[in-house]
Amino acid sequence: MADKIFRVNMTDLSTSIEDVPADWAGHGGRGLTSTIVAAEVPPTCHPLGPNNKLIFAPGLLSGTTASNSGRISCGSKSPLTGTIKESNSGGTSAQRLARMGCKALIIEGQPQDDNWYSLSLTSDGITISKEEELVGQGNFAVVEAVERRFTDKIGILSIGQTGEMQMSAANISVKDPDSHLRSLGRGGLGAVMGSKKIKFIALDAGDHKVDIADPDAFKAANKTFTKALVDHPVSQALGTYGTNVLVNIINEAGGLPTRNFTAGQFDGHEQISGETMHDLIVERGGKPKHGCHQGCVIQCSQIYNDLKGNYKTSGIEYESIWAMGADCTVDDLDQIAEMDHILDDIGIDTIETAVAFGVAMEGGVLDFGDSKEMIRIMTDEIAKGTPLGRIIGNGAANVGKTYGVTRVPVVKNQAIPAYDPRAIKGIGITYATSTQGADHTMGYTIATEILGVGGSADPLSKEGQVELSRNLQIATAAIDSTGMCLFIAFAALDNGACLPALVDMLNARFGISLTAADVTNLGMSILKTEHAFNQAAGFTNLDDRLPEFFATESIPPHDAIWDFSGEEIDAFWNF
Amino acid sequence: MADKIFRVNMTDLSTSIEDVPADWAGHGGRGLTSTIVAAEVPPTCHPLGPNNKLIFAPGLLSGTTASNSGRISCGSKSPLTGTIKESNSGGTSAQRLARMGCKALIIEGQPQDDNWYSLSLTSDGITISKEEELVGQGNFAVVEAVERRFTDKIGILSIGQTGEMQMSAANISVKDPDSHLRSLGRGGLGAVMGSKKIKFIALDAGDHKVDIADPDAFKAANKTFTKALVDHPVSQALGTYGTNVLVNIINEAGGLPTRNFTAGQFDGHEQISGETMHDLIVERGGKPKHGCHQGCVIQCSQIYNDLKGNYKTSGIEYESIWAMGADCTVDDLDQIAEMDHILDDIGIDTIETAVAFGVAMEGGVLDFGDSKEMIRIMTDEIAKGTPLGRIIGNGAANVGKTYGVTRVPVVKNQAIPAYDPRAIKGIGITYATSTQGADHTMGYTIATEILGVGGSADPLSKEGQVELSRNLQIATAAIDSTGMCLFIAFAALDNGACLPALVDMLNARFGISLTAADVTNLGMSILKTEHAFNQAAGFTNLDDRLPEFFATESIPPHDAIWDFSGEEIDAFWNF
Repeated sequence: MADKIFRVNMTDLSTSIEDVPADWAGHGGRGLTSTIVAAEVPPTCHPLGPNNKLIFAPGLLSGTTASNSGRISCGSKSPLTGTIKESNSGGTSAQRLARMGCKALIIEGQPQDDNWYSLSLTSDGITISKEEELVGQGNFAVVEAVERRFTDKIGILSIGQTGEMQMSAANISVKDPDSHLRSLGRGGLGAVMGSKKIKFIALDAGDHKVDIADPDAFKAANKTFTKALVDHPVSQALGTYGTNVLVNIINEAGGLPTRNFTAGQFDGHEQISGETMHDLIVERGGKPKHGCHQGCVIQCSQIYNDLKGNYKTSGIEYESIWAMGADCTVDDLDQIAEMDHILDDIGIDTIETAVAFGVAMEGGVLDFGDSKEMIRIMTDEIAKGTPLGRIIGNGAANVGKTYGVTRVPVVKNQAIPAYDPRAIKGIGITYATSTQGADHTMGYTIATEILGVGGSADPLSKEGQVELSRNLQIATAAIDSTGMCLFIAFAALDNGACLPALVDMLNARFGISLTAADVTNLGMSILKTEHAFNQAAGFTNLDDRLPEFFATESIPPHDAIWDFSGEEIDAFWNF
Repeated sequence: MADKIFRVNMTDLSTSIEDVPADWAGHGGRGLTSTIVAAEVPPTCHPLGPNNKLIFAPGLLSGTTASNSGRISCGSKSPLTGTIKESNSGGTSAQRLARMGCKALIIEGQPQDDNWYSLSLTSDGITISKEEELVGQGNFAVVEAVERRFTDKIGILSIGQTGEMQMSAANISVKDPDSHLRSLGRGGLGAVMGSKKIKFIALDAGDHKVDIADPDAFKAANKTFTKALVDHPVSQALGTYGTNVLVNIINEAGGLPTRNFTAGQFDGHEQISGETMHDLIVERGGKPKHGCHQGCVIQCSQIYNDLKGNYKTSGIEYESIWAMGADCTVDDLDQIAEMDHILDDIGIDTIETAVAFGVAMEGGVLDFGDSKEMIRIMTDEIAKGTPLGRIIGNGAANVGKTYGVTRVPVVKNQAIPAYDPRAIKGIGITYATSTQGADHTMGYTIATEILGVGGSADPLSKEGQVELSRNLQIATAAIDSTGMCLFIAFAALDNGACLPALVDMLNARFGISLTAADVTNLGMSILKTEHAFNQAAGFTNLDDRLPEFFATESIPPHDAIWDFSGEEIDAFWNF
């Protein structure tokens, strides 16, 4: 069965199943969402208006048995940044879409009335239904109710209350294999789904399977690929401690942004570290090692139980723990887990929201370290859309603007995540030049600067950082198109067998003959497509800058400042 | 006595009196503030940080006996728009600054502590004092107290509570001859003054007078100039009805934006019209005709008393009445006057704030027409800096963003004023291309499109509108440099004796020999200086656009849409 484009028009509630245009055939995941956004979304449209579109696409290898290939991409024009946006996530949706033969789901238009809707997709087509019962509900209740209505075999994409209220930090939740939640986290894609008045999307692939052109070659390549993944020491550390292994490492490097980016080390780092978390999880009968999608061999996710041994949250990332922890000076993992649970339930990006809290703390709205007040604001204000809730739910830049705070760590209005660009300079180039606002995952220079993967780079020196970020951003754009988790990058950078095996799998899946150079070219062309969209939306190289305070305030312990010139940053685009 | 530059550094609390650089000598008012901002403010700096500057400059003719020459300009990088900004106002400050020999006051830096300060200027220099008593007070209390401390002969520039809280719609108040308030209204300059921690500036010129190189020539030219002003029918209408004469006229034209820009005519227009207001004022013993500064011969200001005959507000403009009235569907002048009084007292732009209320009404925060709730929000929320108060006090775009509203009438984040650009197209070109965000005063095409001054143009046709706006924007930049009120433009456009007399006054004041062409060149060069600043701050021609909804939603009664292409708009800059 040939893959198809599934299209939904929410203005007239029509649907269609279309052949894949030739131009789009070689694309998947991020490459496909960005290609479609660039082709069909007017760059200057209002992100929450009828002319924006919301696009979901599984990666090229999603739905196959390839290890770690279960990422789904979601693309749109971001209401947070105004740029093109792709966010990707694990969970069960990519595999369901791929198996039902959906190469991309395009949602366009906007209802003319006040009704809410849901979508249900099978290989036969799309059903649009009015939705009343679940409007106003959190994601956990939605998943439970939707599974009851359909079957627990389905994939579910949903928004919480914040997405309904179109807050620009709202995310889209993706059901994981345990009916818990992963998130298409950054850039406010949940607000776009809310603007289309879609509460959830149910994905039923039935017994369909993905076609493989050369099953034997595929299997052999996957074996090599999988071995490369599981052999890498970073994969192993991730499986043991989760991404939160980084708290102690980044603190040691002096790049753990603390107290709204006024220091690079946090006194309470031990209390929130991956090591501490691992022990707590084991002690309480949780799972320190857990996959966010079927076929993951790294298993950086975990299940975190509360003091009584009951489920509290899962898949809690280093960046979330840092943001609610060091950035807000909260040193209590249970409080952080509670907040993570709430934010997942109401459907809002943990990084953006917690950095927004840090700015609000600096603006005097609440005290640093006051996790009880954070929890109260999350449940009583953000979830209910009070004025304060909306201020914070619209992100860090919005808080800074509303309270006249000048130390606001954002690029293109998106909160800077868990690595201070003064003390770890390469990641600052990624923040500045990313087509999507500040986002560590766009070109994860930490791998090389801090973890020594793929060579080494002095995090306190500017040397080689632009090239490092460029190479990683190009590779990432390609990886994000395959459906692969970004964490294959560690093996790919260090093990010569890994990338060729990935290319072999692509060739075996589709019966084509890509080379490694084709993959690099794909990454470059995706970045250029995204960059061109942003330029047509009004962005210039002057938007590729970090906030002023990084250049004027040094950060302890290294007393480092951000010292790249505009010209040095702009050299990023020389390819 | 040669004019000097007065400079205050709020970081180290130092002051200096400097000679005027040769490059600045020919500039005054807006030309000077924009020249200084362009020379000394880094275009990408944070508007509320230490690198922004706040500059006050009287016009070239301010302080003389020239009719209508009492406008003061204030320039900075705007916290609302991010562009260069000049706002100008009547009142008594321009004349005081000019008479004490202050060509410009430059305020730079930012205190390192939490103290508030005041400045006191005389021809001898600047005194910086700590201020405690008046912090948290409204502008009326400040003016009263400062006059008590000094003398009622002084000029006063002050901020209210919203400026202290750095809300980006906050303005700077300027004492008028009756110790009432005029405003440097747009672009959030009050927030910049608040960021420098200056509550007020007292200006004592003593008995100093401005030097005139050729007093006889000056007197003769002023006589011709004054006659041209008082003879013009628009001047006479302004003296009778104030600017509010426009409610009925613009309503008739179908360009009175109503109910957050969803219609071009307001059912309640008669109740809020200039004619109705005139009769009410006379009936209650107010003053229908009043000058905002000494020497004004048009006198479009007025004193509006309440039902009991007590002073309520003064100088209430058409644009304010429209914004609180038609845009929010409030049809009660007393309620509008009450709101005008409150907004003056707390020191916030009436246009920006009322348009923000219109967007909030669309977002469901309060009902259209609910002026009681508007007043409650102004006094209980905005004045006190509650979350909702800050959301609204940061302007229409901020409200739209916070509540996910897509019909948000702003350009470069500044609220579009009282003329719908679909039904009156020339003004739309001004909104789009102005260097300062949407601002009717930058190139007041209404004169020609609606009032038939300086020729005529069909407001529903695109023909000639770009050229009209360009010519008026150039002329306005020059007029804004002289200290002249913009309302001299009506006479200047229709009476051939007016502009030459103005040039003669400039020549007689300084002993120079400008021509009319020099004045036009001055206007062009100011626009180019401002445009270059904005480009260096990251703005592109894509920022010179009206919001999407103007092109997609037609407005009754003409069912007009905004139909200029980007290319047509960009032709504005061909000079």
